[in-house]
Amino acid sequence: MQLKTPKTIKEIAAIIRAEYDGDPEMIVSGLNEIHRVKKGDITFVDHPKYYKKALSSAASTIIINKKMAFPNGKALIFSDDPFRDFVSLVKKFSPFQSAESMISPSATIGKHSILQPGVFIGNHVSIGKNCLIHPNVTIYDNCVIGDHVVIHSGAVIGADAFYFKRRTDHYDKLASCGRVVIEDNVEIGANTTIDKGVSGDTVIGAGTKLDNLIQVGHDTIIGKNCLFAAQVGVAGCVNIEDDVILWGQVGVQKDLTIGKGAVVLGQSGIAKSLDGNKTYFGSPVKEAKEKMKELAMMKRLPEIIERL
Amino acid sequence: MQLKTPKTIKEIAAIIRAEYDGDPEMIVSGLNEIHRVKKGDITFVDHPKYYKKALSSAASTIIINKKMAFPNGKALIFSDDPFRDFVSLVKKFSPFQSAESMISPSATIGKHSILQPGVFIGNHVSIGKNCLIHPNVTIYDNCVIGDHVVIHSGAVIGADAFYFKRRTDHYDKLASCGRVVIEDNVEIGANTTIDKGVSGDTVIGAGTKLDNLIQVGHDTIIGKNCLFAAQVGVAGCVNIEDDVILWGQVGVQKDLTIGKGAVVLGQSGIAKSLDGNKTYFGSPVKEAKEKMKELAMMKRLPEIIERL
Amino acid sequence: MQLKTPKTIKEIAAIIRAEYDGDPEMIVSGLNEIHRVKKGDITFVDHPKYYKKALSSAASTIIINKKMAFPNGKALIFSDDPFRDFVSLVKKFSPFQSAESMISPSATIGKHSILQPGVFIGNHVSIGKNCLIHPNVTIYDNCVIGDHVVIHSGAVIGADAFYFKRRTDHYDKLASCGRVVIEDNVEIGANTTIDKGVSGDTVIGAGTKLDNLIQVGHDTIIGKNCLFAAQVGVAGCVNIEDDVILWGQVGVQKDLTIGKGAVVLGQSGIAKSLDGNKTYFGSPVKEAKEKMKELAMMKRLPEIIERL
Repeated sequence: MQLKTPKTIKEIAAIIRAEYDGDPEMIVSGLNEIHRVKKGDITFVDHPKYYKKALSSAASTIIINKKMAFPNGKALIFSDDPFRDFVSLVKKFSPFQSAESMISPSATIGKHSILQPGVFIGNHVSIGKNCLIHPNVTIYDNCVIGDHVVIHSGAVIGADAFYFKRRTDHYDKLASCGRVVIEDNVEIGANTTIDKGVSGDTVIGAGTKLDNLIQVGHDTIIGKNCLFAAQVGVAGCVNIEDDVILWGQVGVQKDLTIGKGAVVLGQSGIAKSLDGNKTYFGSPVKEAKEKMKELAMMKRLPEIIERL
Repeated sequence: MQLKTPKTIKEIAAIIRAEYDGDPEMIVSGLNEIHRVKKGDITFVDHPKYYKKALSSAASTIIINKKMAFPNGKALIFSDDPFRDFVSLVKKFSPFQSAESMISPSATIGKHSILQPGVFIGNHVSIGKNCLIHPNVTIYDNCVIGDHVVIHSGAVIGADAFYFKRRTDHYDKLASCGRVVIEDNVEIGANTTIDKGVSGDTVIGAGTKLDNLIQVGHDTIIGKNCLFAAQVGVAGCVNIEDDVILWGQVGVQKDLTIGKGAVVLGQSGIAKSLDGNKTYFGSPVKEAKEKMKELAMMKRLPEIIERL
Repeated sequence: MQLKTPKTIKEIAAIIRAEYDGDPEMIVSGLNEIHRVKKGDITFVDHPKYYKKALSSAASTIIINKKMAFPNGKALIFSDDPFRDFVSLVKKFSPFQSAESMISPSATIGKHSILQPGVFIGNHVSIGKNCLIHPNVTIYDNCVIGDHVVIHSGAVIGADAFYFKRRTDHYDKLASCGRVVIEDNVEIGANTTIDKGVSGDTVIGAGTKLDNLIQVGHDTIIGKNCLFAAQVGVAGCVNIEDDVILWGQVGVQKDLTIGKGAVVLGQSGIAKSLDGNKTYFGSPVKEAKEKMKELAMMKRLPEIIERL
């Protein structure tokens, strides 16, 4: 998320009442979770395992739970609970605004786009031209929809990221301030759900077609001209390249990549990155021809057991 | 789809600016995709692999991308892109009409039927008597609901068929003009989605009960008194006979038949037609007793490996 | 379900025009299906296999289809169709009331709770304080929502139990009169569906977080601080203890228990009760380390076959 008005480190530290080390006038222009940081961003880290990743990331400012020397050109803000303090910054700079009406007056709707009855369009949503949004669709605040997009009834665009931190006796939620960006010529099926990014964008690439009852998790980037059949589930932070086809009920775990042109057959379960231009099947997934061999061998098990 | 006013071949050919061969006054009374054609229909074919199927089908008129002699009593319309021209006919004869209100004034609602708040009823929808439509249900144009039907909240009846043609650098959509027909005494669960036929009907047979979050694809015909548990996914053009039971999360691929009285256990994946009156399990699915034997043998694998 | 005004056996028997045996003045204070009975309840049994269970249950009154002596302190009501008569009692004491508006005037909403547009709140629903109910959510009659609860768009809370009795040529529905109870600090994802209890409560324990497109069946009890990823499906009458984690697309069959702290990996299928504090995988599910061994052995099958 970009801040509407950039802040200095000094100002940020004052908000969360924390000490800091670095240039007090250094500018914080954005707020991002570690997966999506860029120069000018503030991010947070609270586990020694990820200190190095955070300190060497593009982020300019890091909220961290250990006193240490700050790296060149960066600043550190010291906190006993960086997660809590990052969440409080998100809530300050991206506060929840309740809706006054089904179509927010701050939304912009392009020429010749049709919003059917029962559609909810949140604050600062942008919808391009020639779109058709069917009845009872919900689009949360700040989402961006391109041109010639069709969204079927009951679809939910931009619900919160499912991202919680386990505490001793409860979970704390990482308040999300990202968006969903749907590019041109996309079609979204009925009752499909696409979560917003934690701080960045969940993206559905131009020309991609999603069937009904599909789940797309936060910060996932789907390429152009992909085709997903009904009930596919894609976790958060997945990178799916162009022209990928996922058949019905395929499940995709978080933080992995599916290469351009890959085809995955129905009900497969994907736990590791997949090369492009191959066909896959099974849970856990394998190359389809390999899986077919395995299934053929399974049929010979009775014979094997008899021979022994 | 039946045309409201039948047209002659000559008129149809003029609309898509194409040459034709056959009786210029021959009547086109309907428009149908090749799976659902009958006498009087116009259909299309664009792949040599399916020429014979199209030419020998019940359709009276075929839009085809090869010049050839027309069969007895039929007519051919020649097009360099039959898919494009068929879609343009669908759009001409079944244009999208945006809604003026949540309940279309052209819809008919039977006696003692209750529509809860937030329900959307599209143009020319017909709902029988003694139905209960729970809040926030969406029923697209032209769907037909029988008597004593219960539809739970969030269900979407009649969204577009998920049917796209791959072009070099994008997908083209086959505009759908079919309907969903729900017979008497059916119950549809919350957030279940049932897509309309491409040009014919998707049918849910009398007395069938569908649980929540189920997907039923375009042109699928489900028989009477079937029972589907939550999260079942059925692709397009499937034929499910009477008294079939599908347990939770079962997936069914397109263009196949499940015989009367078949029972399929949870999470099974069905890629081929199944005989009736048997119990099945697994992905890919097998007869349950066979699958159980296979699972038992799997348990003996460590022993087998040790023996070798 | 508790009756608003308790009735005597004599009165109940008169409603369904049945004979009875026992103290005519014995009080019936509640109506419950056999899974959830307590003292004062009336329940029903129609299969000899379950006579003993019903007669020895906590229920005070049993509608039964066989004349027999009544046990101490209980009463029997004789019916040729106990299911039909139980349903008629449910319909009498818990009749469906259609809604007058999107927010029922009989609902109570706590301080600082926000209901976004398009939300339906049924009769006698209770919502605690500091809740955020996103657009187009549906909450059926009588449900109870605690404090600090977030419910995302399209979620459906309290649809009918999916519970049907097979007759010769159709299914009869067990009318449900239970509730959904959502405790404090729960988050419910977009388009998730949670069915009401048949006669008791479906419960989501405090602090539990459910992702999108999840199904929770009737009378299921989920403990505190559980985490379910998207597209999980849980059948009816399941007991899930505290701190259970179910990853995406896991399926859980009815009438079983998952122990405290169990973790179940994606796409697993659970058909039997699971001990707590272990990790599971597979369909059918096994302990994950066992399943991993099995998968490793599968890879050796070609070698085994070659050796033979």
